[in-house]
Amino acid sequence: MHIELRSDTFTKPTPAMREVIAGAEVGDDMVGEDPTVNALEARMAELLGKEAAVFNCSGTQSNQMAVWTHCRSGDELLIEATGHIANYEAGGPAALSGVSVRRIAGDFGRLDIEHLEGQLRRPDLHFPPTRLLCLENSTNLGGGRTYPLAQLQRVGDWARSNGLKLHLDGARLFNAAMARGDSPKQLAEPFDTVSVCFSKGLGCPMGSILIGSSEDMARARRARKLFGGALRQAGIPAAACLYAIEHHIRRLADDHANAKLFATEISSIPGIRVDVAAVETNLVFFEVDPTRGTAVELAEALRQRGVLLYPAGGVDRLRACTHLDVDREGVLTAAAALRACLAAGFKGIANARGGY
Amino acid sequence: MHIELRSDTFTKPTPAMREVIAGAEVGDDMVGEDPTVNALEARMAELLGKEAAVFNCSGTQSNQMAVWTHCRSGDELLIEATGHIANYEAGGPAALSGVSVRRIAGDFGRLDIEHLEGQLRRPDLHFPPTRLLCLENSTNLGGGRTYPLAQLQRVGDWARSNGLKLHLDGARLFNAAMARGDSPKQLAEPFDTVSVCFSKGLGCPMGSILIGSSEDMARARRARKLFGGALRQAGIPAAACLYAIEHHIRRLADDHANAKLFATEISSIPGIRVDVAAVETNLVFFEVDPTRGTAVELAEALRQRGVLLYPAGGVDRLRACTHLDVDREGVLTAAAALRACLAAGFKGIANARGGY
Amino acid sequence: MHIELRSDTFTKPTPAMREVIAGAEVGDDMVGEDPTVNALEARMAELLGKEAAVFNCSGTQSNQMAVWTHCRSGDELLIEATGHIANYEAGGPAALSGVSVRRIAGDFGRLDIEHLEGQLRRPDLHFPPTRLLCLENSTNLGGGRTYPLAQLQRVGDWARSNGLKLHLDGARLFNAAMARGDSPKQLAEPFDTVSVCFSKGLGCPMGSILIGSSEDMARARRARKLFGGALRQAGIPAAACLYAIEHHIRRLADDHANAKLFATEISSIPGIRVDVAAVETNLVFFEVDPTRGTAVELAEALRQRGVLLYPAGGVDRLRACTHLDVDREGVLTAAAALRACLAAGFKGIANARGGY
Amino acid sequence: MHIELRSDTFTKPTPAMREVIAGAEVGDDMVGEDPTVNALEARMAELLGKEAAVFNCSGTQSNQMAVWTHCRSGDELLIEATGHIANYEAGGPAALSGVSVRRIAGDFGRLDIEHLEGQLRRPDLHFPPTRLLCLENSTNLGGGRTYPLAQLQRVGDWARSNGLKLHLDGARLFNAAMARGDSPKQLAEPFDTVSVCFSKGLGCPMGSILIGSSEDMARARRARKLFGGALRQAGIPAAACLYAIEHHIRRLADDHANAKLFATEISSIPGIRVDVAAVETNLVFFEVDPTRGTAVELAEALRQRGVLLYPAGGVDRLRACTHLDVDREGVLTAAAALRACLAAGFKGIANARGGY
Repeated sequence: MHIELRSDTFTKPTPAMREVIAGAEVGDDMVGEDPTVNALEARMAELLGKEAAVFNCSGTQSNQMAVWTHCRSGDELLIEATGHIANYEAGGPAALSGVSVRRIAGDFGRLDIEHLEGQLRRPDLHFPPTRLLCLENSTNLGGGRTYPLAQLQRVGDWARSNGLKLHLDGARLFNAAMARGDSPKQLAEPFDTVSVCFSKGLGCPMGSILIGSSEDMARARRARKLFGGALRQAGIPAAACLYAIEHHIRRLADDHANAKLFATEISSIPGIRVDVAAVETNLVFFEVDPTRGTAVELAEALRQRGVLLYPAGGVDRLRACTHLDVDREGVLTAAAALRACLAAGFKGIANARGGY
Repeated sequence: MHIELRSDTFTKPTPAMREVIAGAEVGDDMVGEDPTVNALEARMAELLGKEAAVFNCSGTQSNQMAVWTHCRSGDELLIEATGHIANYEAGGPAALSGVSVRRIAGDFGRLDIEHLEGQLRRPDLHFPPTRLLCLENSTNLGGGRTYPLAQLQRVGDWARSNGLKLHLDGARLFNAAMARGDSPKQLAEPFDTVSVCFSKGLGCPMGSILIGSSEDMARARRARKLFGGALRQAGIPAAACLYAIEHHIRRLADDHANAKLFATEISSIPGIRVDVAAVETNLVFFEVDPTRGTAVELAEALRQRGVLLYPAGGVDRLRACTHLDVDREGVLTAAAALRACLAAGFKGIANARGGY
Repeated sequence: MHIELRSDTFTKPTPAMREVIAGAEVGDDMVGEDPTVNALEARMAELLGKEAAVFNCSGTQSNQMAVWTHCRSGDELLIEATGHIANYEAGGPAALSGVSVRRIAGDFGRLDIEHLEGQLRRPDLHFPPTRLLCLENSTNLGGGRTYPLAQLQRVGDWARSNGLKLHLDGARLFNAAMARGDSPKQLAEPFDTVSVCFSKGLGCPMGSILIGSSEDMARARRARKLFGGALRQAGIPAAACLYAIEHHIRRLADDHANAKLFATEISSIPGIRVDVAAVETNLVFFEVDPTRGTAVELAEALRQRGVLLYPAGGVDRLRACTHLDVDREGVLTAAAALRACLAAGFKGIANARGGY
Repeated sequence: MHIELRSDTFTKPTPAMREVIAGAEVGDDMVGEDPTVNALEARMAELLGKEAAVFNCSGTQSNQMAVWTHCRSGDELLIEATGHIANYEAGGPAALSGVSVRRIAGDFGRLDIEHLEGQLRRPDLHFPPTRLLCLENSTNLGGGRTYPLAQLQRVGDWARSNGLKLHLDGARLFNAAMARGDSPKQLAEPFDTVSVCFSKGLGCPMGSILIGSSEDMARARRARKLFGGALRQAGIPAAACLYAIEHHIRRLADDHANAKLFATEISSIPGIRVDVAAVETNLVFFEVDPTRGTAVELAEALRQRGVLLYPAGGVDRLRACTHLDVDREGVLTAAAALRACLAAGFKGIANARGGY
């Protein structure tokens, strides 16, 4: 068995969660008759202080439903340069909604007024109208960093006063809440819509949800149907999500502690560079000295020692992600394996399986 | 408890199926590591005699993935006038793929050469190029009718010789196979791609699959990601589908017998008109004499007597659908309730819940 | 020289019009500085009783700007089955705006309440929301027929009361006005937007215009830019349009008289069938007895005798179109040529140039 | 009268050009019968060493036709960060073609291998496939800079060897050819498609052309029809383009000399910063010391002294553009006016007309 540090999307349902799934009360969600889905949507709307919610099958779908809800073809959205919606959703804004994406360099994936000012275009037929601002909390490619509440409020005020809609990609919203000690409701407050993913740190097999006003959710529900995302007896996956809300949020603190531990351990390995102070949640980005080998080679060497993690772009960057299927022991073992790789060397190691 | 004849999409997982779901072996399907999904895709590809398959969450998604795979923006597809892709998928061909839909009147939802000839446009910049022909087997709005194998082959030859791609909306393919005594492989043979739905007569909580060549499936997999349909530990729903393939196909014959029984029973009710001979699978369309009341009023009167079914378009048309949650007893009870409604009268009945 | 009856799009600018073109005052229309374009837009807005107008390069562009202005991706428009927007604009509604087209059979291309009632869908996630109704006046494929003013008002009231926007494809609006004796303003009154084409019966080398409210025109102007239709010194073509408004509208009556004359002449030819009473404007549709040869063969035989016209769909249908480059003499000569073709026979005539 | 330095799009047709326009031989270009358009397309194809060309009404339309020709919805194109297609075409790639845009920072709007390497994505369902590379020569926002021929060839080789299609936005291609002494054919050689604009330095009232292989042009012609860009008697504007090819290319050298003269003159004005050596063609970008006032204020002060030019983004940047309606005298007068503005001061000047 491997130590799985590639992503929290690899988490598998626990026996208790499987039991809940098997016993779920279900109905046809397409016509609004699945009681478990209805309970989950009501629970999440309440938890985030919004009117309504739409359960669906992936974080990408939630985000693209939001883009489709807020924008028309020919509009533009603003997003931090590393944002998931701009970089990891298969070009969805353009292909599904005809929406242009303008990337703005921020601070570890986060935007503040200073990054945004001057980015609003004057009305001019040459430019697509800017309609939507998307933030991410916690950031993914930004390093698992979180927003101070005051910054969210400040950016929200700026967006509203400039006539923009505001969407939060909260795939890891509960990680952010746990790390900052803010409530999900506080973190959601400045936003028109918020997406949350259940199949990351919360450990569910599948499922995501979009939360917002009743009017926006009516339109998002239309987007879900259009994308082929409307489900039938969706209480099966939704039951796991309700379970996770009760049992898997508080324990995210363990993942954060394990990430910090991993970062601290590897910070003393010669040839590895990591900013321990920057580790706020469950993601650890680190660099390898490229004279010793590439990130891809290092990931392969680790794999051969039973540790899985991802190269993270560029020649030297890697990412480790902690979650409920990795404990303190696993993290220490993984750090030791990394130390051993650096000691033994890994340059030119053959990647038998064919790449990442 | 109601007798549920609205749709086979209302079927709920059986205890045995729930057990299989709870014990499913899972992995991250987004990176191809879910063994149950992989087994299901391999099984369905083999069953239909194609190279590959892509599991996803709905029949609509499978169909729209096929349209996106075969067409480019500015192309056109041909389909029978009542076809699901043209009428019940939220305008997906236009909105997701930029594809125009040309409806051709056929015979109970089925197309033959006689309907298609003369429908191919000459090359001309005024017209979108016709790229794809979509058939449905069994038909839905066409009345649950099925294609003779020879007709499928004939239309397939015509399509190929005219440079068209050919997609089968096989949401109820196993019903068609069971009704005709043809194998799924025979029914799939003329087509480039085939969609099959697991959450209709097969009784699964969710899931559909698109089957075709490796090259087309690689492109369809991209469509699935784009639509937000890529899943994680999808072995949970996929396990139910594998179970259904083993245990719920043969029993579709019962649904067909029950549909026939229902049609026969109601054919003697004054004010009801039904073509018993036209009932080939699990769908029964029938008309009510509009001087006695509308289809909507009759559906409401039935609901008050514990029987659920759908008005089916027009003022006088209704549809009853049999499936594994309705047995022979239920069907007879429903027919008796219908007889009682007609006897008691239902004109102007108040629809308390507000509409279908 | 041929007698040109294929289409009024073949009209060439007269010497007087060429002089006006050469002397046009111009500026950069992209920034609103072309005085001739500004005058044309103001003139047309006034003529049709609307607030604003946007000049552009084709009737198709005007129509697609209207669709883009009124609809969002995932919406649906209603149109008569033979409508130009649905059949001759390259699939534009789907490809440019993500809009589905629902064709409704009417009466010679015209819709009335009786055709429309029952066509509005109930709110349901399976269906794209119906947003727009498009009419055509005069009709093209419908045979050059025109709407009685009362019918336009009736349909307009129905559309508004059902929350639909209403667009008029008025490519040949002035023909309709001339034929009925109604003013363009009266014909435009029920509509949110109206397109008019200058390069048909009005004889301009190019140009079309969309007319409507200031708000809709601001959005349409954005569509024009998006489609690459924004122009620079567009006073050059626009000057011809202003000239045509002054000098080429009244003379449309001659085209109508010539069309009627042509229909009357050919109505006595054995093997030709034409409804003379149905000829209201400048289009004459007629059928050839298919036992004598196909429409394509007849068009070729006519071409060899110096008369150009188009087969018009189906095996036996043809269209002749009168305009300012064909006089009474030409029409009589064309009718005589047709008589000669039928007398001489044309079955199996070789089409040297390769098709229509 | 003002001295017009805003853009070469403001050029007006000369008397000789107007005469040619008035006498143009025309036909219906939609069916390929306009002899002047046919001659222009043949001439441009020959001049650039390609098989075919499609005349249309704007540089934006040419570019968007190219994007639609080379890409499918869900694809991605690469372009330098300041590129016109990415920044000034109303979000066309997303809205018309469903194509995502990835901006890459280059050198004055130009890309070389060093900027491109590492920008190709690995095959991964999270990313849109990269299909097209777009270059611009001369650059617009990049400052009118041109590509060395060897760099074009190098980048072309890189694109081809990586399976990318290559499009050149040659709105000002003849300026680049004139500045470098390369032939248009040499500059076009590495590209699949090239757009050229006639209504900039060449002084035509309207018109652009896309040039490439016969197969690509057949598809581009379809795009033109779809966008509503198909024209009728387009020989009217096309005649001006043929005239400009004969008479207005060589004289671009004067515009370049005038631009250089203007830059040299203003380089000695206190408070103005300009890189004279960077002025290769007809564009001069310069900065004003922001303590003296903003670019918008300076443009307004110049306007009041009879000189028109555009602020060019940022608080301090302006652009002057020379063309055939500005001579050496005009440029010297404009430079003197600028000197006078700086001497007199312009901070806080009221912009009566309301903005740029």
